[in-house]
Amino acid sequence: MMVRAAVLKAVGRLTVEDFPRPMVGSKALLMRVELCGICGTDIHLYHGRLRVPLPIIPGHEFVGRIEEIDDEARSLEVLGHELSEGDLITVVPGTNAFCGTCYYCRFIPQRPNLCQNRRVLGVNMSCQHPPHLYGGWSEYVYVDAGHWWVYKVPEGMPPEVAALTEPMAVSTRALERAFKPGLPTSGEGFSLGSTVVVQGVGPIGLLCVAAARLMGAGTIIAIDALDHRLRMAERMGADHTIDLKAYRTPEERVAEVERLTGGVGADVVIECAGVPSALPEGIMMTRRGGRFIEIGHFTDPGPIEVRPHIICWKDIDILGCWAYPPAQFRRALKALEMGLEAGLPLRELITDRFPVEKAPEALRYAEQRKGLKIAITP
Amino acid sequence: MMVRAAVLKAVGRLTVEDFPRPMVGSKALLMRVELCGICGTDIHLYHGRLRVPLPIIPGHEFVGRIEEIDDEARSLEVLGHELSEGDLITVVPGTNAFCGTCYYCRFIPQRPNLCQNRRVLGVNMSCQHPPHLYGGWSEYVYVDAGHWWVYKVPEGMPPEVAALTEPMAVSTRALERAFKPGLPTSGEGFSLGSTVVVQGVGPIGLLCVAAARLMGAGTIIAIDALDHRLRMAERMGADHTIDLKAYRTPEERVAEVERLTGGVGADVVIECAGVPSALPEGIMMTRRGGRFIEIGHFTDPGPIEVRPHIICWKDIDILGCWAYPPAQFRRALKALEMGLEAGLPLRELITDRFPVEKAPEALRYAEQRKGLKIAITP
Amino acid sequence: MMVRAAVLKAVGRLTVEDFPRPMVGSKALLMRVELCGICGTDIHLYHGRLRVPLPIIPGHEFVGRIEEIDDEARSLEVLGHELSEGDLITVVPGTNAFCGTCYYCRFIPQRPNLCQNRRVLGVNMSCQHPPHLYGGWSEYVYVDAGHWWVYKVPEGMPPEVAALTEPMAVSTRALERAFKPGLPTSGEGFSLGSTVVVQGVGPIGLLCVAAARLMGAGTIIAIDALDHRLRMAERMGADHTIDLKAYRTPEERVAEVERLTGGVGADVVIECAGVPSALPEGIMMTRRGGRFIEIGHFTDPGPIEVRPHIICWKDIDILGCWAYPPAQFRRALKALEMGLEAGLPLRELITDRFPVEKAPEALRYAEQRKGLKIAITP
Amino acid sequence: MMVRAAVLKAVGRLTVEDFPRPMVGSKALLMRVELCGICGTDIHLYHGRLRVPLPIIPGHEFVGRIEEIDDEARSLEVLGHELSEGDLITVVPGTNAFCGTCYYCRFIPQRPNLCQNRRVLGVNMSCQHPPHLYGGWSEYVYVDAGHWWVYKVPEGMPPEVAALTEPMAVSTRALERAFKPGLPTSGEGFSLGSTVVVQGVGPIGLLCVAAARLMGAGTIIAIDALDHRLRMAERMGADHTIDLKAYRTPEERVAEVERLTGGVGADVVIECAGVPSALPEGIMMTRRGGRFIEIGHFTDPGPIEVRPHIICWKDIDILGCWAYPPAQFRRALKALEMGLEAGLPLRELITDRFPVEKAPEALRYAEQRKGLKIAITP
Repeated sequence: MMVRAAVLKAVGRLTVEDFPRPMVGSKALLMRVELCGICGTDIHLYHGRLRVPLPIIPGHEFVGRIEEIDDEARSLEVLGHELSEGDLITVVPGTNAFCGTCYYCRFIPQRPNLCQNRRVLGVNMSCQHPPHLYGGWSEYVYVDAGHWWVYKVPEGMPPEVAALTEPMAVSTRALERAFKPGLPTSGEGFSLGSTVVVQGVGPIGLLCVAAARLMGAGTIIAIDALDHRLRMAERMGADHTIDLKAYRTPEERVAEVERLTGGVGADVVIECAGVPSALPEGIMMTRRGGRFIEIGHFTDPGPIEVRPHIICWKDIDILGCWAYPPAQFRRALKALEMGLEAGLPLRELITDRFPVEKAPEALRYAEQRKGLKIAITP
Repeated sequence: MMVRAAVLKAVGRLTVEDFPRPMVGSKALLMRVELCGICGTDIHLYHGRLRVPLPIIPGHEFVGRIEEIDDEARSLEVLGHELSEGDLITVVPGTNAFCGTCYYCRFIPQRPNLCQNRRVLGVNMSCQHPPHLYGGWSEYVYVDAGHWWVYKVPEGMPPEVAALTEPMAVSTRALERAFKPGLPTSGEGFSLGSTVVVQGVGPIGLLCVAAARLMGAGTIIAIDALDHRLRMAERMGADHTIDLKAYRTPEERVAEVERLTGGVGADVVIECAGVPSALPEGIMMTRRGGRFIEIGHFTDPGPIEVRPHIICWKDIDILGCWAYPPAQFRRALKALEMGLEAGLPLRELITDRFPVEKAPEALRYAEQRKGLKIAITP
Repeated sequence: MMVRAAVLKAVGRLTVEDFPRPMVGSKALLMRVELCGICGTDIHLYHGRLRVPLPIIPGHEFVGRIEEIDDEARSLEVLGHELSEGDLITVVPGTNAFCGTCYYCRFIPQRPNLCQNRRVLGVNMSCQHPPHLYGGWSEYVYVDAGHWWVYKVPEGMPPEVAALTEPMAVSTRALERAFKPGLPTSGEGFSLGSTVVVQGVGPIGLLCVAAARLMGAGTIIAIDALDHRLRMAERMGADHTIDLKAYRTPEERVAEVERLTGGVGADVVIECAGVPSALPEGIMMTRRGGRFIEIGHFTDPGPIEVRPHIICWKDIDILGCWAYPPAQFRRALKALEMGLEAGLPLRELITDRFPVEKAPEALRYAEQRKGLKIAITP
Repeated sequence: MMVRAAVLKAVGRLTVEDFPRPMVGSKALLMRVELCGICGTDIHLYHGRLRVPLPIIPGHEFVGRIEEIDDEARSLEVLGHELSEGDLITVVPGTNAFCGTCYYCRFIPQRPNLCQNRRVLGVNMSCQHPPHLYGGWSEYVYVDAGHWWVYKVPEGMPPEVAALTEPMAVSTRALERAFKPGLPTSGEGFSLGSTVVVQGVGPIGLLCVAAARLMGAGTIIAIDALDHRLRMAERMGADHTIDLKAYRTPEERVAEVERLTGGVGADVVIECAGVPSALPEGIMMTRRGGRFIEIGHFTDPGPIEVRPHIICWKDIDILGCWAYPPAQFRRALKALEMGLEAGLPLRELITDRFPVEKAPEALRYAEQRKGLKIAITP
């Protein structure tokens, strides 16, 4: 039997190929993909903005059902569930976290996201050799359960919501970076009643809005240029939106944030736009003593001018946020469950589906930012 | 014109008296009380368990309308609103926070709740001399707006909810003590998806349940012996209840918390029972590395046995929580607004109202714990 | 009797004038200046880079003896000492901290340094009207002890060390910003054994080196272009120096920091150079997950290019640090005492003294960066 | 060739036995012990106060030289050093940290000390089967370098200081628990200039004094009943001592701490006495808003009465402290280096040495608390 998968052969060259279905080895499983989201990272990979060993099968936001599983792997689910054929699962793509021997694994155990030997399914694992199936834009993904973090999807959660686990892990960690210790916490960083600005409400930004809402933000302000995104942001919990078509300059947008926050600025600003100029603009939107979270630049579109004096004068925290620890999936799944219960329109985040064969079209479509989250589905 | 007020003349002697209506001095205002809650502290005061200079007019959880206000006080509202006659307001009872000269005001500005010169309306301010009206079980309260923290109640919030601002300040601070810094925060202390146990769901415990719900707790477990409290806890957001009538021993209750938390214990336990034995029991319910918050012992019912080894072995944080900074009222009002919006039954927390003349009966009724929050209303 | 003082009449115009000696009012004192340091801020004021209402008497780093004191002020020393004529004192120049009514004083009590109504002796208090003497480049300073923070200098501390209290407050707060919570703290932020880079070892940088040494830094690396500063940095506790004359490019300096830190980068980098390009360079020197403290830009010399991707990828904290709370003087005095005991050459930091009449020459000399700390002394 | 080791055969029965010298397997090494300290835990093990599978070879604080090493293990030193025969090393006794599969390893990566599958050399690893040598009271220890944390001792550090690495790891983590986040940190928890009380200055307490000194404590107060300990505490950096023979009641000792802290109480109190009554006494010594660290109860000598009201009223943090993460050894070695450089009498902490044959006598001697740290040396 053969398995169809999209393969990034070289920068700018995405093809569809057939691979032999692998034997399931010790402590491993084979997952039949239900859905795999397309992420900005995939677009960057296509354009060669991240150095990885090609060819790869892209796709790291996948959910699927266990097709075959080694007996020894049945007990390896992260939360202690027993695994069986047919179970809907999601898998942390960052594998072998922790390597256990790099500087970060040894000395900074709080930050497994910084492991220097991090290998990520769908990103930097070559598909050249068997078992090949190391990415989600495929009919099947091969998961070595001995080392990888497999989570069973909670009862009743539909696959199109479970497929958001990975981006929700990114978004919830961004929010958690915004927590500011300090007792009493009144008015410091993010907590109950805080004002949060989300710059850019693509999927990551929308999930930041949702997470902020679930965590008790008082006022959420979403900024974007696209109407369908702004509308969805409102449904996810944004109290106000700032439309870049109406507020055309950074000065106007900063003034609007000030107006909406009683002249003070936002407690927390989360940069999800991925545009360098969002950094200085977001710093201006942050109130003195507030927090700015930089989550939108997983690749490098270049530099931007920043005034060191403003950082100093504002006494602010500018916090980079890179990926997430594997335990974040637990938090993300819980957030998705809570979001469903609270009536957030999480089911509607995946707006378009393409079969594996149409992966190149799907990528182009995603680049045009017409829908929200685009998914590959066998 | 005379003003009727309940007066604690001596330990165990609560009477009703008439005072002359005071002239409103510079930067002051006279508030007509709408509602004033009865708090456990009032009961302790009545029984002489707190040393304060009697006589006092009890009552520190009050909400009311401005009857008369000095022109200079009109601009002194904390959030910048203009004050006028008829405005519904709530006032931080801890006055003169900060004194600005004690050790804590000088060196620990983060903890204005520890001010050594804290004087509290309705608690330790004698009513012997004019303007007399320094407590809420009265038709009027005299507020020196120059030093006190006056908040205008948000548009549309009914008085019976605004009257919960003070206990909600206590409860939200307890939750904030449970935030645990640490990056990534996954699994540490309280955050999105955490498991929270609330021991004792009287009014403070119920508001802890509500606040935990609003802040994104994953699982909330409420413990009490009274059915009407447990039912209300469920409506406030508790996922599970433990009835002391069914789980009769600490061992059974600890086992039930373990069962509900996958054998691990709770991330956060908040002690709102005010019973010494809740301390060691709550410590047993806290998972290793978790947080236990002690908010229930504003007076001293005596000691209890604790094993230092368990504290050491569990690597836990046991955090005392005393009152709140005056800025907490802002957070509390926001939490109440969010709770109303989320459909929490906050309007039903005040179950019984007594006129000022019946303050002694109200106190006895409150002691019997028949209702939830009991209020005095002129 | 007349009092001689240097007066900044207009941007670029510093004169020497005589003022009438003021009467000492209620809760006030008159201090005879012993020494007043020249700070970078003074140079910026001279060149009009900070908008303040002129004329002013510059000088905010002063130490002196009580010449005359109102009886009611004798008990107002911050630490509880009784004040008498002849006592050596130092005074927090940021007066009326806290105003008690601005957003920060009300809602962010942890950050009195952000008070929106902060008035600073020697910076933004006009000397036009009596009592005129609101700055340290003068024979006398007038201190309203009712509102200001007066500290008695510890027994045995010489005035030339006590004059460093204000810059040491700046430097210790920078170090404290570098503490990173997280349990266990091993390897996170600054703590015992951490690696600290100080960019620019003028007086603030040198005191950062000293504070880092006293707090248990493991490896301290000082960067500067001036030999006498680098030599002093070594005597203050730097383990390594990077001379900009030898390491001429940012790349070379970053490589040297990496070499000295086993290829990882520094746990903490403190920017004390005040040169915009130090920001991106310092970010490159910070290890992933580390902390960069921006303390060197109290004025605005313009923008610099920064890569948002690096902030994101490094998962770092970039923390602005503006001034300090008034309680910081207590910490600073303690640090100076400990530094003296540890044999740090704090007495030698003031390298040159000029009388008030020569204030213009002193300013020019300071600008040439020939000495270390330059002081005005009557 | 045979290896002589002390064996705890059963509770209360310590013998000396000969084992065959093991072959060195893959990624393993054989260490010739230079010194192994006796810890309170060893005494508890002897008396059966900890449930472990006997027989064991006690001893977890060991330092020694590599006798034989597998080639594959040469590159496995934690800090990246190459390992060779003759190298002086110290080893984290808590092996297989992290297991990677328990609740704590998965979800609380910051707390590897809470790993539920923690196996500790010299504590709970049976010596019944080959390679037998799983404890430090022996001529040799067998170290499986593939899983264990091996640190090369820094150049020039004598074995009698390197043997303190394990207790120094305990002590430095206690101090780190005392760091309190909060910006600005002035006056919160432990930082530069803080007041620290150490209850009980046996070896752990003495190393807490040393660590507090190195980290910039302002005032250190040591409490004990034994003169030679109090004298050593002074030499390690204590500013004041409280002799239990002179201050006979808790009230007298609390009053003395208050006197030494200006009536406020200590910022941080570290309980190293291991006596239950030290818990309530230490809580009384802690200032409001301060931190109490419970590090002294690794076994359970029973309960003690505590007043929940005091915890509540003081708004304090009571923090349990269990063991340390394996990365703490790096911090501990650095602290020992810094202590040597600062002239602390670390070489004198080991006061008595006994050969392996005399392990039973050594244990009895240690129980009498005549010396400070007692060591076994082949």
